Amino acid sequence: MKPFTELLNLDAALRKIMERVRPVIETERIRLEEALGRVLAEDVESPIDVPPFSRAAMDGYAVRAEDTYKASRENPCILKVIGKVETGGIWKGKIEEDECVEISTGAPIPMGADAVVMVEYTKREGDKVKVFRPIYPGGNVSERGTDIKRGEKILTIGSELKPSSIGVLAAIGRKEIIVYRKPRVAVISTGYEIRRPGEELRPGEIYDINSYTLSSVIELNGGIPIRLGIVEDNEERLEEAIRRGLEADMVVLSGGSSVGSRDLLRNVLERMGEILFHGIQVKPGKPTLAALIENKIVLAMPGYPTSCLSNAYLILRPILRRVARLPPSRDLKIKAVMGERYVPSLGRRTFLTVSLRDGKVYPVFKESGAITSMSRADGFIVIPENRDLVEEGETVEVYLF
Amino acid sequence: MKPFTELLNLDAALRKIMERVRPVIETERIRLEEALGRVLAEDVESPIDVPPFSRAAMDGYAVRAEDTYKASRENPCILKVIGKVETGGIWKGKIEEDECVEISTGAPIPMGADAVVMVEYTKREGDKVKVFRPIYPGGNVSERGTDIKRGEKILTIGSELKPSSIGVLAAIGRKEIIVYRKPRVAVISTGYEIRRPGEELRPGEIYDINSYTLSSVIELNGGIPIRLGIVEDNEERLEEAIRRGLEADMVVLSGGSSVGSRDLLRNVLERMGEILFHGIQVKPGKPTLAALIENKIVLAMPGYPTSCLSNAYLILRPILRRVARLPPSRDLKIKAVMGERYVPSLGRRTFLTVSLRDGKVYPVFKESGAITSMSRADGFIVIPENRDLVEEGETVEVYLF
Repeated sequence: MKPFTELLNLDAALRKIMERVRPVIETERIRLEEALGRVLAEDVESPIDVPPFSRAAMDGYAVRAEDTYKASRENPCILKVIGKVETGGIWKGKIEEDECVEISTGAPIPMGADAVVMVEYTKREGDKVKVFRPIYPGGNVSERGTDIKRGEKILTIGSELKPSSIGVLAAIGRKEIIVYRKPRVAVISTGYEIRRPGEELRPGEIYDINSYTLSSVIELNGGIPIRLGIVEDNEERLEEAIRRGLEADMVVLSGGSSVGSRDLLRNVLERMGEILFHGIQVKPGKPTLAALIENKIVLAMPGYPTSCLSNAYLILRPILRRVARLPPSRDLKIKAVMGERYVPSLGRRTFLTVSLRDGKVYPVFKESGAITSMSRADGFIVIPENRDLVEEGETVEVYLF
Repeated sequence: MKPFTELLNLDAALRKIMERVRPVIETERIRLEEALGRVLAEDVESPIDVPPFSRAAMDGYAVRAEDTYKASRENPCILKVIGKVETGGIWKGKIEEDECVEISTGAPIPMGADAVVMVEYTKREGDKVKVFRPIYPGGNVSERGTDIKRGEKILTIGSELKPSSIGVLAAIGRKEIIVYRKPRVAVISTGYEIRRPGEELRPGEIYDINSYTLSSVIELNGGIPIRLGIVEDNEERLEEAIRRGLEADMVVLSGGSSVGSRDLLRNVLERMGEILFHGIQVKPGKPTLAALIENKIVLAMPGYPTSCLSNAYLILRPILRRVARLPPSRDLKIKAVMGERYVPSLGRRTFLTVSLRDGKVYPVFKESGAITSMSRADGFIVIPENRDLVEEGETVEVYLF
């Protein structure tokens, strides 16, 4: 039984992996309807002006602004209405002096007109209209190309597609776009004692939790979990499973919390590739192992569900997002006051799951085997390596789940 | 052309809809693998203890604690190793005085033992082991049921399923669960001038943006968008489309920004059901219309893309989440300083899209027709009805997109 040799701190561990991560390079063409959350693999230039024509921003009358300059409530100017243009239609003539065209919001401004008088400031009388207020040139007109100019680069390669960027792509008429494919992450649970939910437990056996929590975190961060099931804790089976996993872009194993089974896994990984680190200075989650095999990251998480899930947030998530070319996740944080004192382990950065009651923060951590310490938590706080006490009443920052 | 009759403020408008919302009641049975983000439709009690047996929390030797009380570095106690139990296995005998069993992390504690001595504090010599430290009863043992007790309610009806709750369901062996079905939201774009992306634009026509942004917001908030396409702006076609839309749980229309086409839609909705409100005091997004038809919410959003999208966040999102039985969305907020002065419209609550540069906040709002004012924004700030100025250097709260 080998002890952990080099315990890295979390930042150093992450740096060590991050510099070896290879973001996906393969792309795929998808329909705009499927684009939400994907990462653009092309610079997008607009083939058109948006709006593609100058249009009315209000219901009213398209006019030559200069014809209205002298208009007032007492002395309205009187224009001849020579046509009508509805949204979606077009009026083909040209407006001359003291003429105007009735126009709906969104309809193209007729030739000769340069402003729209709002209907509220007019009074229609047969084929004439009284205008009670002057309007300046460009008034109530959305000029062609004010939103997007033809040839303008509107989105750049690597952008994460949000509702508003999907809107911009629709605005320029894109039906399909090229995005990076989603990374596939093989998920493997190891251990002789692990059974699939739905199966009967025999004495000494427990249900597989980690492949479910890991797959959930993968889904939430732009990846496709490839569930490879449960593998027995021996070198041959582990190697076989990891080989299969390497058809994906990343492999995440969990289990084997004992030093013995860690050694087993370490041996297998060492034989197959390069160990990046083994053991990190965090609590919970110390026995995390990272390797590089065929240029792919292989992460072996602790078997304990809480450790496994907190390391999924702290280690798997940033790595996967880098592989997927997504920006780092943005954590929801709030400041709150500790409801009781907490004494952490010195020398390891502690991620303490907490619940919020009446605006105060209480630890819910039971033990690293306890999944309920996660499911009952509203979030976690981070206690630095050098703190020996978090005092009741102290203000802490809670990262919300 | 009717003017807007009653302009409600946003809170009043939301209240008016919220009290009429009917959350989905139909449920479906799904596999645990598909449960992320869904809403539980059952109280879940555990059929088992978790862990289902008392187990070793460390690699070492399962002992009777009292046999170790006198152990020290100088005077180790010596125990007879009468067996070995691996994780997933079981050791069927019983430990008597001064006996122990070699045990792996996660393996069941043998009968007679009540503690585990860590391997680090022992030295093996043949079938004997020296123990250099005393251990207390229960030391390094995870007791049966410490995490979850059989019969304990672990999740309640209405819970949103996060990675940790999926983990808890796996822990108790659930393969399938009952959840509320996702609400379906019919999305309709209206207008003679609207074309589908990918089609050719004729003069006076523009591309459909809103059904894409609305569908994205629906997907992000637990709904299934049902894209009913583009409908011409006349009463017959609108009624037909809304009827079709009512097969879903909610209907969202967009378009018809002109007072004329709003009237058209208002007439149709009035005939089909009850108008909840028409027009709200927000900028952008004033001409929003809400109705109740066959007990289903029908929302008519402004046609302008920015107004439509900001109202999707402000109105559609909370309503949809209520229909889906999801908790209100949690906004990412940061505090930052205005980089320039902004003069809002008095009397309407303003949602100003902003970008962040060098930690300062700059308005990016161009006009409500401009989708780029959304896609270039990092978030928005809310300016109350009674503010006539936001000063440069003033601290504001930015809701991040």
